[in-house]
Amino acid sequence: MSKFEEKCIKKEVIFEGKIIKVERDTVLLPNGRESTREVVRHPGAVGIVAIVDNMLLMVRQYRYALAKETLEIPAGKIDKNEEPINCAIRELREETGYQGAMTFLGAFNTSPGFVDEIIYLYLARDLIWSPLVADEDEFIKVVKLPWQDAVEMSINGQIQDAKSSLGILLANKILKTN
Amino acid sequence: MSKFEEKCIKKEVIFEGKIIKVERDTVLLPNGRESTREVVRHPGAVGIVAIVDNMLLMVRQYRYALAKETLEIPAGKIDKNEEPINCAIRELREETGYQGAMTFLGAFNTSPGFVDEIIYLYLARDLIWSPLVADEDEFIKVVKLPWQDAVEMSINGQIQDAKSSLGILLANKILKTN
Repeated sequence: MSKFEEKCIKKEVIFEGKIIKVERDTVLLPNGRESTREVVRHPGAVGIVAIVDNMLLMVRQYRYALAKETLEIPAGKIDKNEEPINCAIRELREETGYQGAMTFLGAFNTSPGFVDEIIYLYLARDLIWSPLVADEDEFIKVVKLPWQDAVEMSINGQIQDAKSSLGILLANKILKTN
Repeated sequence: MSKFEEKCIKKEVIFEGKIIKVERDTVLLPNGRESTREVVRHPGAVGIVAIVDNMLLMVRQYRYALAKETLEIPAGKIDKNEEPINCAIRELREETGYQGAMTFLGAFNTSPGFVDEIIYLYLARDLIWSPLVADEDEFIKVVKLPWQDAVEMSINGQIQDAKSSLGILLANKILKTN
């Protein structure tokens, strides 16, 4: 047991949505005092660094939470009982039409202060055309970026999506050692 | 205007907490259909890659949302009307006792599918001892890691916090070109 552990003494479910669940729990701190913790439960997600002919496949889409379009690597939520690797294969086919050999890059907490979301990142290579029909309410545009431009845009902050920048930098380490 | 824009036609505030606000909005999609969007509003945060004597300062702490201890770079939420750079200086002093010269590494969305949180990452060097009293209900332990070990742990997935791995890889690019 962690000596810093915060013990739940009361759990209050605030919201059960289609995607997230929100709780406000009362916890006992290590110093014996009480506090509250606002927690978002999330099913987890995948992100895929997919490279075809030395071009990175990215997705332009409208993000309602940000009220703007973003440029991100293909990504999506994990379905119930779905393995992350299968989610990655499915999402890449749905969003870009491609399927390929997956290399696991790592599993990361996106914002551990308030959400339990884990994002599983993969590198996809040796891509072949193998589309899956996507959700009809999903509006995205695939954008191809030269790989070195994508690396440069990750380093200089032009790619503002954390999973995309992290995935590209991790993939670059693998590609440089191959 | 984005042709992918999702127009809000009804806003429902589900929860206004101390830290997060949760909304469920009804939106009009580009194809004219309606859908709902679950959105978490967050004040934003900073993370600091702080290096002293070629050692990275990291923080071990219990994360209630994950129900475990994590190893992360010093980080914290932005106070109301606080500039990110001032938040970074404050958080580093509170969590580690050090103050130094800050280099901006980038601003990133942590999980654009459902939260508007932006994390501002900084590299802190030329550190001097200049502690600020921390929140008495915060229980953390500072851990020093040799810089090359931290880079290696970011690449091989041993550091499971996205902002930490991303910040370390971005800082490493700057340090290698200096």
